[in-house]
Amino acid sequence: MTERMKAVVKLEAAPGAQMTSVKIPEIKPNEVLVKVKATSICGTDVHIYKWDEWARRRIRPPQILGHELAGEVVEVGKEVKSLKVGDYISAESHIPCGSCIQCKTGQQHICANLEILGVDRNGCFAEYVAIPEAVAWKNDPELPLEFASVQEPLGNSVYATLVTEVAGKTMAIFGDGPTGLFAIGVAKVSGAAKVFAVGRHPRRLEIAKEMGADVVLNEREADVVEEILSATEGIGVDIVQDMAGTQAAIEEGLEVLRKGGRFTAFGIPPEPVRIDLAKNVIFKGVTIYGINGREMFDTWFKVANLLGSGLLDISPVITHKLPLEDFERGFELMMKRPKVAAKIVLFP
Amino acid sequence: MTERMKAVVKLEAAPGAQMTSVKIPEIKPNEVLVKVKATSICGTDVHIYKWDEWARRRIRPPQILGHELAGEVVEVGKEVKSLKVGDYISAESHIPCGSCIQCKTGQQHICANLEILGVDRNGCFAEYVAIPEAVAWKNDPELPLEFASVQEPLGNSVYATLVTEVAGKTMAIFGDGPTGLFAIGVAKVSGAAKVFAVGRHPRRLEIAKEMGADVVLNEREADVVEEILSATEGIGVDIVQDMAGTQAAIEEGLEVLRKGGRFTAFGIPPEPVRIDLAKNVIFKGVTIYGINGREMFDTWFKVANLLGSGLLDISPVITHKLPLEDFERGFELMMKRPKVAAKIVLFP
Amino acid sequence: MTERMKAVVKLEAAPGAQMTSVKIPEIKPNEVLVKVKATSICGTDVHIYKWDEWARRRIRPPQILGHELAGEVVEVGKEVKSLKVGDYISAESHIPCGSCIQCKTGQQHICANLEILGVDRNGCFAEYVAIPEAVAWKNDPELPLEFASVQEPLGNSVYATLVTEVAGKTMAIFGDGPTGLFAIGVAKVSGAAKVFAVGRHPRRLEIAKEMGADVVLNEREADVVEEILSATEGIGVDIVQDMAGTQAAIEEGLEVLRKGGRFTAFGIPPEPVRIDLAKNVIFKGVTIYGINGREMFDTWFKVANLLGSGLLDISPVITHKLPLEDFERGFELMMKRPKVAAKIVLFP
Amino acid sequence: MTERMKAVVKLEAAPGAQMTSVKIPEIKPNEVLVKVKATSICGTDVHIYKWDEWARRRIRPPQILGHELAGEVVEVGKEVKSLKVGDYISAESHIPCGSCIQCKTGQQHICANLEILGVDRNGCFAEYVAIPEAVAWKNDPELPLEFASVQEPLGNSVYATLVTEVAGKTMAIFGDGPTGLFAIGVAKVSGAAKVFAVGRHPRRLEIAKEMGADVVLNEREADVVEEILSATEGIGVDIVQDMAGTQAAIEEGLEVLRKGGRFTAFGIPPEPVRIDLAKNVIFKGVTIYGINGREMFDTWFKVANLLGSGLLDISPVITHKLPLEDFERGFELMMKRPKVAAKIVLFP
Repeated sequence: MTERMKAVVKLEAAPGAQMTSVKIPEIKPNEVLVKVKATSICGTDVHIYKWDEWARRRIRPPQILGHELAGEVVEVGKEVKSLKVGDYISAESHIPCGSCIQCKTGQQHICANLEILGVDRNGCFAEYVAIPEAVAWKNDPELPLEFASVQEPLGNSVYATLVTEVAGKTMAIFGDGPTGLFAIGVAKVSGAAKVFAVGRHPRRLEIAKEMGADVVLNEREADVVEEILSATEGIGVDIVQDMAGTQAAIEEGLEVLRKGGRFTAFGIPPEPVRIDLAKNVIFKGVTIYGINGREMFDTWFKVANLLGSGLLDISPVITHKLPLEDFERGFELMMKRPKVAAKIVLFP
Repeated sequence: MTERMKAVVKLEAAPGAQMTSVKIPEIKPNEVLVKVKATSICGTDVHIYKWDEWARRRIRPPQILGHELAGEVVEVGKEVKSLKVGDYISAESHIPCGSCIQCKTGQQHICANLEILGVDRNGCFAEYVAIPEAVAWKNDPELPLEFASVQEPLGNSVYATLVTEVAGKTMAIFGDGPTGLFAIGVAKVSGAAKVFAVGRHPRRLEIAKEMGADVVLNEREADVVEEILSATEGIGVDIVQDMAGTQAAIEEGLEVLRKGGRFTAFGIPPEPVRIDLAKNVIFKGVTIYGINGREMFDTWFKVANLLGSGLLDISPVITHKLPLEDFERGFELMMKRPKVAAKIVLFP
Repeated sequence: MTERMKAVVKLEAAPGAQMTSVKIPEIKPNEVLVKVKATSICGTDVHIYKWDEWARRRIRPPQILGHELAGEVVEVGKEVKSLKVGDYISAESHIPCGSCIQCKTGQQHICANLEILGVDRNGCFAEYVAIPEAVAWKNDPELPLEFASVQEPLGNSVYATLVTEVAGKTMAIFGDGPTGLFAIGVAKVSGAAKVFAVGRHPRRLEIAKEMGADVVLNEREADVVEEILSATEGIGVDIVQDMAGTQAAIEEGLEVLRKGGRFTAFGIPPEPVRIDLAKNVIFKGVTIYGINGREMFDTWFKVANLLGSGLLDISPVITHKLPLEDFERGFELMMKRPKVAAKIVLFP
Repeated sequence: MTERMKAVVKLEAAPGAQMTSVKIPEIKPNEVLVKVKATSICGTDVHIYKWDEWARRRIRPPQILGHELAGEVVEVGKEVKSLKVGDYISAESHIPCGSCIQCKTGQQHICANLEILGVDRNGCFAEYVAIPEAVAWKNDPELPLEFASVQEPLGNSVYATLVTEVAGKTMAIFGDGPTGLFAIGVAKVSGAAKVFAVGRHPRRLEIAKEMGADVVLNEREADVVEEILSATEGIGVDIVQDMAGTQAAIEEGLEVLRKGGRFTAFGIPPEPVRIDLAKNVIFKGVTIYGINGREMFDTWFKVANLLGSGLLDISPVITHKLPLEDFERGFELMMKRPKVAAKIVLFP
């Protein structure tokens, strides 16, 4: 193995990133070295690229970006038991400590001491990446590279959507980003009887239709609350899932949720939100599920089964495939993406 | 309204039933009179027709048979509030008392004092039937009559299948009767990744395929346990659902269930069964759900939504449509039905 | 039976209420007439008495106040089946319509068309009250009148506290009103390992201690967040229950809740609240349960069993027993109650 | 550290065991060496001691017995991160593989490749024992040694009892062995309103009373089914928990369980059992939970909290404390134990 590799690195505390040559990572005894075959761009990567406030607080350059991947194990640490050279893997990006109360009670995905790939340690926008055995996920050899790479964000959608049963229920999904679009597909193949998709970008809402949304509403044109209430005889929907993270989506979502319904909060609002807790949560008897990450590894089994069985087709969401060298174009597409793109996969 | 009607009646304590002319039922203040438009034959009706041991203990002739129906409200009792003449309804066949602890805690379907339509009171193999408001279910006017009629047994399958989430899971469904066949469809449209259907009648197993079963096993030909275990790398399936009610199905089902899995017991074994509780339930950490009837009315909403949305197509299971006058042919088909028939709908 | 009775009536759209003589209510066929033996004052009654903004919008005088009671059935409507003259009953104050989706799926307590005793129809601060059979609850003859009367608010606390299991868990309960104080007792007898009680009134916090709180914090004196976090090694508690309904309680509650914890929202904030959804709900993976009323009648069975078994002693919360004639003193105590009183029971 | 230690060893494939001198175990990189301070005798140890059929199939002598313990870490493997010399620990006896589907989805306690301490590897009836970091549990320094040692079987009872909520419910617990007696205490401090304890040994049933049982029934004298049904107005109890593992207990338990109730199967029947699945599970709508081991580590947190808070006092169940040297007397007491003993703790 050569000792150096190409990688997309945030070199200094400033906007942008550069492709440069760095050392291939050395693995610890509990890690494997993975040759990256596909890697996809997440909104988090864009935050880091743009160097916004959150990124300035959290990221310590130099830092290799990226946390969604598919690749092949090329070296195995000496404590590793369940993986071998040649395995085709993806990875959970949330690396749990294993010792906190969350880790000890089946909530590793919200570990108190979470280390995130590409955020707190070097990521996978590179030819190689070191992955702890504990977060590696063995793929079915038949799974296409781009699907394998996006299992991580798809897992967000699967966890958020299936946190309680959706079969035979009505749903409204707010947010037309990739996780919102994935969620529509997950809901429909899991028996959601009627899915309202709410977004703001015509290109994305076309994809929402392709993913199976029964009704598509552009919040810039439609009176979302009025439309959903009138389509449900004034009752509201059984389940509202917010994948947008805006004050408006959360407020409108709670308005169109029926009494006794479920609200899934996944989109990250940049500021605290105002919630009419009395009217829309307490008197309505609503349950709100805060969702982050993916259950380890319940969610991954579901993702693999839904993809592997052919029930779920996510290809409409993957709008672009580019060589890793074109990462800057990828980021540009992402930044203006609502108009032209959804999910972008890079191939090193 | 004429004062008499045609009805299929068990006239005496002996096998068979006769079409005869009886009085149109008078309704109580809390009941509605329904003109029956479609009614379907259940295994329970066959037990009564054949006059088997269970029937001899339970049924007090004369008794109008039948409990699955679709019809139109033609008269409304004076205490009835939610129904009016002209409503298109079906009915929950389990009539709860409303006062027992089960009824008071959301378990009306297993009411301690359950009265069953067509079993404990006159049924719907007739031109008219009296239905208590509390068990009437208003149908979507678009729903075809034969689908509306079979919602009751379909509800069994929906309740049994969706008692816990199936999306992204593997399942084995034992039993190729109508409820087993319905369950396959319900499981698949609710995201079950791989469904093994186990039965014994080639005609039924063809329908199982049409309903979406991924693997179909004829227990007379295949080594069911061996096939399912080898198809799951020796692990077993996440969920086993018994809709057969035989010692063999229950035993084999528990064998092919993975540790930590769910077992749904719906099929009624005529005798107590032998269960290796230590090996297959306790050490495996299995949960067994005994399922009877349908949740009132959670299940009905799911049934209506799955049918109404077009997600679930149950037409392959409805093999025969006959005029009510041909009920004897219907019963004959049912008795030898595994070879030629699944669900039979009668039209008065 | 005499034709008139004494009752506490809001006669006009203005503060206060008067004891006056009114007609004994006539019952409908599905109702019973109850001779009131004990009735207790709720915060809602105080809102109506004070004639605040909510009351002005909701209440249509003349209106008999009161919705918590214990009494004896003295007359039975002709459709009533499960009650007879002489029965000792209390009543669920939420009268469900029976027809909406909530009523049809076991969520009657949040019925879409809820009618509330003493709010939307005449209440029980009177010698007699008409109660629909559907909301009557038969008491154990041994249950003391004042305990029987407060089962309704105690039910709030039981439902809110036991919405998920508390045994072996740590909890913080915010709010030192009667429902908060009841909740402490419910939590402790149900196995909550450590309960932090947060309030602001020294007299109430003494009662909190008597109800079993392990740690009592006066929010006017203590740094609640700091105290609870330091007592839990910085992790936070497993469960936070807000029975206060203030911005501060909700905000602090979410701060001291551990990742993966449960938040119960019961206290009614008069205004929308600001919630740091990203930090305290989504990244924490928190589930929020909005709680209103009591489950019909799961909660009532638990209330009756906890009281009847002697496990739960609520007598420290009942600080005053007065004749109904002294209702004005009762309301005065309630309005300045935090200093001197918790729950007040009136005897007609 | 001396190189040899005393240990109770099954030296050959025959009944009995001997105290002998063996090498102190060498630890692997992921293990700690523990100086045993207290260790308790389980029924499984008795099976091995007696050399019954199960033991002959499973055990490969020479084998150090014992799997319940409290002790002090005296040496730490070089991969161990969360433990240090001097830590006061107990241990989960189920050592999971970490790679199977059960381990990957929060069901490590029923790992497909479970290795059990004192069964599949050397146990803790010795001065020292090697414990994998993954199953070590750090104790509160205040916890008495004998309580710390019996947390493992107490965990069985906590998991079995609290698998669904018991607060405000009625229960029948069959079996008067230590886990049955523990379960009574757990149920009562968790709010079970009325607990019927069913056993057959007068000494044990006295302990049942001390643990809080409301009604104690000796199955050799009482008609258990009749007594429980008549005490529950013919309805039956909400929850039945079998800690006995006999055909009679399981059958009677299902008879006295109410419709819609929960059945917990924990006791291990030596043979398959006959169950009237139709009558007592399906028509009743019962859910059966097969319980083995303890949830890792949800159960351990609950155990520690219930003991540490002082809510749960298990001392009545610990009938004997002996030096490890007297292990033979301990086994003799265990074998005839129902008459004189419940739980026996040994001190090396």
